[in-house]
Amino acid sequence: MGNCQDICKTFWCRPKNTNVRISLPAVCFVWQIVMIILFGVFVRYNPEADAHWPEFMQKHNITSNIENDFYYRYPSFQDVHVMIFVGFGFLMTFLKRYSFGGVGFNFLIAAFGVQWALLMQGWFHSLDPTDGTIKIGVESLINADFCVAGCLIAFGACLGKVSPVQLMVMTLFGITLYAVEEYIILNILNARDAGGSMVIHIFGAYYGLTISWILYRPNLHQSHRLQGSHYHTDVFAMIGTLFLWMYWPSFNSAIAYHGDGQHRAAINTYLSLTASVLTTFAVSSLSAKRGKLDMVHIQNATLAGGVAMGTAAEFMITPYGALIVGFCCGIISTFGYVVLTPFMEKYLKIQDTCGIHNLHAMPGLLGGVVGAITAAAASTSIYGQQGLLNTFGFVGELSNRSPGTQGGYQAAGICVALAFGIVGGILVGCILRLPIWADPADDNCFDDEVYWELPEDEESIPPILEYNNHMITKNPETCM
Amino acid sequence: MGNCQDICKTFWCRPKNTNVRISLPAVCFVWQIVMIILFGVFVRYNPEADAHWPEFMQKHNITSNIENDFYYRYPSFQDVHVMIFVGFGFLMTFLKRYSFGGVGFNFLIAAFGVQWALLMQGWFHSLDPTDGTIKIGVESLINADFCVAGCLIAFGACLGKVSPVQLMVMTLFGITLYAVEEYIILNILNARDAGGSMVIHIFGAYYGLTISWILYRPNLHQSHRLQGSHYHTDVFAMIGTLFLWMYWPSFNSAIAYHGDGQHRAAINTYLSLTASVLTTFAVSSLSAKRGKLDMVHIQNATLAGGVAMGTAAEFMITPYGALIVGFCCGIISTFGYVVLTPFMEKYLKIQDTCGIHNLHAMPGLLGGVVGAITAAAASTSIYGQQGLLNTFGFVGELSNRSPGTQGGYQAAGICVALAFGIVGGILVGCILRLPIWADPADDNCFDDEVYWELPEDEESIPPILEYNNHMITKNPETCM
Amino acid sequence: MGNCQDICKTFWCRPKNTNVRISLPAVCFVWQIVMIILFGVFVRYNPEADAHWPEFMQKHNITSNIENDFYYRYPSFQDVHVMIFVGFGFLMTFLKRYSFGGVGFNFLIAAFGVQWALLMQGWFHSLDPTDGTIKIGVESLINADFCVAGCLIAFGACLGKVSPVQLMVMTLFGITLYAVEEYIILNILNARDAGGSMVIHIFGAYYGLTISWILYRPNLHQSHRLQGSHYHTDVFAMIGTLFLWMYWPSFNSAIAYHGDGQHRAAINTYLSLTASVLTTFAVSSLSAKRGKLDMVHIQNATLAGGVAMGTAAEFMITPYGALIVGFCCGIISTFGYVVLTPFMEKYLKIQDTCGIHNLHAMPGLLGGVVGAITAAAASTSIYGQQGLLNTFGFVGELSNRSPGTQGGYQAAGICVALAFGIVGGILVGCILRLPIWADPADDNCFDDEVYWELPEDEESIPPILEYNNHMITKNPETCM
Repeated sequence: MGNCQDICKTFWCRPKNTNVRISLPAVCFVWQIVMIILFGVFVRYNPEADAHWPEFMQKHNITSNIENDFYYRYPSFQDVHVMIFVGFGFLMTFLKRYSFGGVGFNFLIAAFGVQWALLMQGWFHSLDPTDGTIKIGVESLINADFCVAGCLIAFGACLGKVSPVQLMVMTLFGITLYAVEEYIILNILNARDAGGSMVIHIFGAYYGLTISWILYRPNLHQSHRLQGSHYHTDVFAMIGTLFLWMYWPSFNSAIAYHGDGQHRAAINTYLSLTASVLTTFAVSSLSAKRGKLDMVHIQNATLAGGVAMGTAAEFMITPYGALIVGFCCGIISTFGYVVLTPFMEKYLKIQDTCGIHNLHAMPGLLGGVVGAITAAAASTSIYGQQGLLNTFGFVGELSNRSPGTQGGYQAAGICVALAFGIVGGILVGCILRLPIWADPADDNCFDDEVYWELPEDEESIPPILEYNNHMITKNPETCM
Repeated sequence: MGNCQDICKTFWCRPKNTNVRISLPAVCFVWQIVMIILFGVFVRYNPEADAHWPEFMQKHNITSNIENDFYYRYPSFQDVHVMIFVGFGFLMTFLKRYSFGGVGFNFLIAAFGVQWALLMQGWFHSLDPTDGTIKIGVESLINADFCVAGCLIAFGACLGKVSPVQLMVMTLFGITLYAVEEYIILNILNARDAGGSMVIHIFGAYYGLTISWILYRPNLHQSHRLQGSHYHTDVFAMIGTLFLWMYWPSFNSAIAYHGDGQHRAAINTYLSLTASVLTTFAVSSLSAKRGKLDMVHIQNATLAGGVAMGTAAEFMITPYGALIVGFCCGIISTFGYVVLTPFMEKYLKIQDTCGIHNLHAMPGLLGGVVGAITAAAASTSIYGQQGLLNTFGFVGELSNRSPGTQGGYQAAGICVALAFGIVGGILVGCILRLPIWADPADDNCFDDEVYWELPEDEESIPPILEYNNHMITKNPETCM
Repeated sequence: MGNCQDICKTFWCRPKNTNVRISLPAVCFVWQIVMIILFGVFVRYNPEADAHWPEFMQKHNITSNIENDFYYRYPSFQDVHVMIFVGFGFLMTFLKRYSFGGVGFNFLIAAFGVQWALLMQGWFHSLDPTDGTIKIGVESLINADFCVAGCLIAFGACLGKVSPVQLMVMTLFGITLYAVEEYIILNILNARDAGGSMVIHIFGAYYGLTISWILYRPNLHQSHRLQGSHYHTDVFAMIGTLFLWMYWPSFNSAIAYHGDGQHRAAINTYLSLTASVLTTFAVSSLSAKRGKLDMVHIQNATLAGGVAMGTAAEFMITPYGALIVGFCCGIISTFGYVVLTPFMEKYLKIQDTCGIHNLHAMPGLLGGVVGAITAAAASTSIYGQQGLLNTFGFVGELSNRSPGTQGGYQAAGICVALAFGIVGGILVGCILRLPIWADPADDNCFDDEVYWELPEDEESIPPILEYNNHMITKNPETCM
């Protein structure tokens, strides 16, 4: 027994080894090969991307190539794609010495995530019963990007404190959980969530926060010198913020119903975002001595209006309704950065590097609630007969569902997303606590040095300065 | 009387207080709440964004969702949106210590501006007489972005010398003036100006220059150490330049006539821009010792070809005509940076931080003139019967207007834009001189320190160096 | 004779003069004026951009403006445009002191290149026999951007070692050669190459490598202090990488067949790129001590999957086929950076600044081979009757060509691209060796100082530090 305890102790407490030379290549190669095999067995082009499309057109009386879904959705897809790789990637470059890790690991896990998401979402949503294959098209690519967004949100909570191998594991499980949760919310409950306030943001945020809670580092203050930003990294982060902000209307409208659905979703999101910018600046200024603005707020809370419009974007929430949502979100989110993040770190032991609780969790919850209320208030006079069917999918088995009932199911969706995020986060967090993942020591967090070859001159700048001082102190004769 | 003079003197001459903790939040909150109320009263979705769209399609015999204006204009809208927030925003990060202010305040005033522009432009252009509401769609969003562009140009002249509260005031009045001016030029004169050489660039530039003239700071040299750029901020500014440059064809074609109009506007702008790049490099090299290129020219004058194509982009100016315009603009604009900007600062007391006189005012004037000439030279043989009607809108009351007359009205448009810019600038400039706006002192301009919390290490780098020297000089014993 | 030798010696060996004050403006002005004249003689709008479009619609029974090619291709065009200017431009900012040159010269030569490309490609592909003019539309703009991409790849090999005048000459000849080579491959051989694995990447890479070989600098180590990157320039370069990576699906699909062709090309490229990210991270980690990742690999080799999909993107290569191609490319390309680039510099005397041999040459060759094999394996059962015709253009004279024969012609295309690259590179390289181009000396390479006015404070930072040391060493009394 004692021996076993000793072994355990040794196993858990040995000094950190951050060498990923075996584990990272192994994970990348094995997973990529598995992807190739599974794609070989399961994945094919859908009729709109298949070379038989001319025959398909004839059979379905489609008169023009422009009716191919590609032309409806490809511009929105590209905008979403930019949000995933440049938006999330650059938003996470703000730390003074973790820009490589922020943008680089984001790149790695997103590129892996979309492949796994195409499979997982394919099995749940678009498995062709005739031949057992998944048929992919441009809408599948958008959905895969959405799925990855959930995992990148979770990454935000753990930024700088985990190894790339842990991130790959987190993404593998995150995508899996996401696909199941999404299936329950969208297909079983038939809740609507075009921009993913619930499916993406609530799930992603609580998944990441729970993992961060499980991986709590009591001595993180040892890396204090590397927390915070640098003047130029703050500007880099603004690239991420602005691309997320500008393209969010595309995000929320990308998979909305053709025609008025996409159009309305873009307008609502645009308006909500503008309002949250103003309230973010207002609260940021209010909360500081001499009214000075804080870049952390501007980089993050301005986006809250887009998060909170995720569910209701395609509904008839009206333009002023969208402004009100953005107005509230900007306040809540900035307030979160000022008050809640320090509180959570101190009392709840949740270290949330990017403040995803303020940017995704709270606005996501608000968005879910707004969606439920707006859905419950829907009526034929507001939407028209056909508009109601298109927007809420009241066809087939659901043709008798009332808007009130729909509101209830929307609310149920929030709970499902929350449950998956928290329970999934606990499970995955425990897996990530195993001491085999090459995560950094407490005094080595937020440091690119650990996983990246850094440019020489950069590393040498502080030594030179120190060397000067050192020289001055220790070798006075060289001074003479 | 004497007492009153004293009070006045105290009022005007008290030391600068740059605390915006009350004023900025107050302005943001009050204006956002007013926006919400006005949107509640006035703003609704247009038929293409409304859930009744399926019924609208049936009534108007529209057979496919792809005919929704969303699919014609949304990609262009997103490009314009990127120009406003990333293009203008990053172009203004070039100052070594005002990158936060450049991109951050740009973000703030643009987000406020589009809301106010939707209302102002709606009242003038798309007020539905049946129910007194404004119906918005994707074209309204593009127009709102255009309207804001005018104010951001004006911001360029004042960059670093005004407070965020002043910028909000400037934007409020700027948008208001813009909407009136645009109504006169486009609706009363029926001048054509798809890319806004007159409506946006002439107005915006003279509005900003006049304000800058009124707010002349005789002791601005006290901030000399903060003028000019840093190696990395120049690269940041190139992000802005390139996104403006690349997406300018979308800017000039975004609200042009469907089909050939948008197509031609994009081609003309593309060509004009390429020519202005070559002449900018040429003149920049010519004007310097040893032919060294100047980043200020490359960042700005390369864009002049787009500005000057604003009016004539949708006309049949021919590809070589577009090249000639770009050729001239690049020369004029670079020449302006080399000669006129220093001249204006010294003799006309106009301090133009970003050189908007060279990038927007002169090329805008040229663009207006080119538009007038090209319009006057139009004929049925060049445009075809229907093409002439589509391009110049010779329908209804105007069905008898000749191209020659149209040319005259185009020229009149230039004067209107100029007049609104200068008169509006004087009025707003006087308002902004009131000593209640928390603007920085002359020795505090171009400094993010005033309105932003800066990262700690950044501020400390110069002190450390100085401290070393200091230490070396004053405390030799620590050297031992 | 001896005198002649002396003169020659003096001519070739005189000290480097890097003053471009006469040559650069002269080249820019003269070439731009020539462009204007040639455009005046040759270039007109095509029917879809001409104001007679309404009549054209009537004549050809086109019922909607949305059928204008502008709406099929403009979003892809803008993505390609971003790749050329921001993608290539920022990818080349990675050097610590050559960011201005990287992004600035890229801007200059691309802006010149597209004009010349419109003419050259127009003469070969779209000369209207009725009036001897070139008719341009949005597809011409895309093709011009493609053509320029070839020259920008070549620029990558010479980055930092040539003058802007040399770059202009290189681009002039590069575009000319490209247009001929493209005509032979696409029109005479009827090889398919929608994304240009052969036409763009093989040609561009070998053109650049050969020039770099001819311009070999034995004493380049004298600029060693300026080789390599800076922490922030590596992040700038990631902007380039990510925009190239995200928009590559648009690149490969931009001129593919309407409908399923564009759709499939985007999906294949997307998948191939994701796989190459994973294998790049894997090999990069494997190849370094302690598994540390190298930014050079992440910035470049992750893109190899897009290069290698250039030819086969629109074929029915299947999703897993695309993954396999990306998988192999990531490995080959990263391996090239680790092993081949140093080998080539040492033994083959090819100094390849950006490693284009690894990113473009090898993946391009692989892409050509994959394209040939996939084409040879095509069949009616996979593509459908009409699909086969659309994809491979088996109409008219070619209606009897079998897929097997097509595979042979694809392979022939690879050889043509290679031959044009190498022979063209030798010719142009010899021209560029003339000592009249103001290229930098061996100890002045990779330095923006030579061709750019630099911000003052930047230049002074190293001197100050040195001055301190100096002061400490030489003037000990100030220490006291």
